[in-house]
Amino acid sequence: MAAKSAVVLVSGGLDSATVLAMAIAEGWRCHALSVDYGQRHRSELEAAAQVARSLGAVEHRVARVGLNVFGGSALTDPSIAVPTQPSAGGIPVTYVPARNTILLALALAYAEVTSSEAIFTGANAIDYSGYPDCRPEFIAAFEQLATLATAKGVGGARFRVHTPLIALTKAQIIARGLELGLDYGLTHSCYDPSASGRPCGRCDSCQLRAAGFAQAGVTDPLLA
Amino acid sequence: MAAKSAVVLVSGGLDSATVLAMAIAEGWRCHALSVDYGQRHRSELEAAAQVARSLGAVEHRVARVGLNVFGGSALTDPSIAVPTQPSAGGIPVTYVPARNTILLALALAYAEVTSSEAIFTGANAIDYSGYPDCRPEFIAAFEQLATLATAKGVGGARFRVHTPLIALTKAQIIARGLELGLDYGLTHSCYDPSASGRPCGRCDSCQLRAAGFAQAGVTDPLLA
Repeated sequence: MAAKSAVVLVSGGLDSATVLAMAIAEGWRCHALSVDYGQRHRSELEAAAQVARSLGAVEHRVARVGLNVFGGSALTDPSIAVPTQPSAGGIPVTYVPARNTILLALALAYAEVTSSEAIFTGANAIDYSGYPDCRPEFIAAFEQLATLATAKGVGGARFRVHTPLIALTKAQIIARGLELGLDYGLTHSCYDPSASGRPCGRCDSCQLRAAGFAQAGVTDPLLA
Repeated sequence: MAAKSAVVLVSGGLDSATVLAMAIAEGWRCHALSVDYGQRHRSELEAAAQVARSLGAVEHRVARVGLNVFGGSALTDPSIAVPTQPSAGGIPVTYVPARNTILLALALAYAEVTSSEAIFTGANAIDYSGYPDCRPEFIAAFEQLATLATAKGVGGARFRVHTPLIALTKAQIIARGLELGLDYGLTHSCYDPSASGRPCGRCDSCQLRAAGFAQAGVTDPLLA
């Protein structure tokens, strides 16, 4: 019997690379999808392509979506500064409006044309507790929507959104990836890298990554 | 008290122009959104801009999304012919994978940055019965998702998706628009217009439009 197909959202970051490694280890035929939503840096998309190729995704596509026409986030609106301090609760300024809804909607389109029956995403309810669209109830609502929205839904099959990282700490994510032989040197996390692509070490994302490697008791290959 | 804000999806077609006229007549402050998802023709987007301006939307934005990277629809994939016969049930080849999910997700992002509490869309369960993502249960699922997905959802307010055309025939839609003084000569429906923008008269969309005007007992100003 042929392997089941899934779409895996791969951003180029540490979390989604781990998700792809996990999905492939479970035997899924993986269609990797990156979304270019007007990020400030291309490094993430280049990392995504490397990660997809190196882990053995059957293909990798980049969908472009002009979220920057809306502004409202430090990640897509140049008039808002990227914070250098961890946010003190509430919704971080790096939140992109409706981002996960849009990413999952694009993954759903790709799933339909590849006859995939599931989406894998690195949504995480621990490190990103301030993001409303990273909560488990949001994921469940999207599964319901996807089942109704698509041609597959008409046939009655339940569409699944797998979030294998949802309850893992950053250190646990890193430990799982290392077990699977993932080279985290291919991944990119920084919101504000130097021109040569070197992480800033100060942004929220760099700080989360550093704390994760420290807790996992290993050295980040990007900093080695 | 300031008027409530809504995002209105405006494609340039007859249905969504009527929705915008209805929302404005109800006193909503309307942010018009068109989505350029790789359509074959620019005429639709030009019509959308004209409709938004003429009806009095407070602004009009165009979000670009690269659905053509996925293929799978006659509307975005040049290798699939646009049908000239009405489809005989089932899902039409002009179906774009997950299109309404993506359109609503983009509208949700725009709603967040404009502090809008609702989306208006021309989804219709009669003329488009073959499209799984035009069904009322899909719309209800999206409302649930939107409430959970967004910052607004965290505060507990229910996000609304208004579908004032959901149970109307094309003739009823046209009659309503004419009551509101809408000039249908600004709208564009054809999937396959001539180089000068003249409707082909043969595609599904032209046939639905022609039948609607005939049943409403009026002449389509585009053909006058």
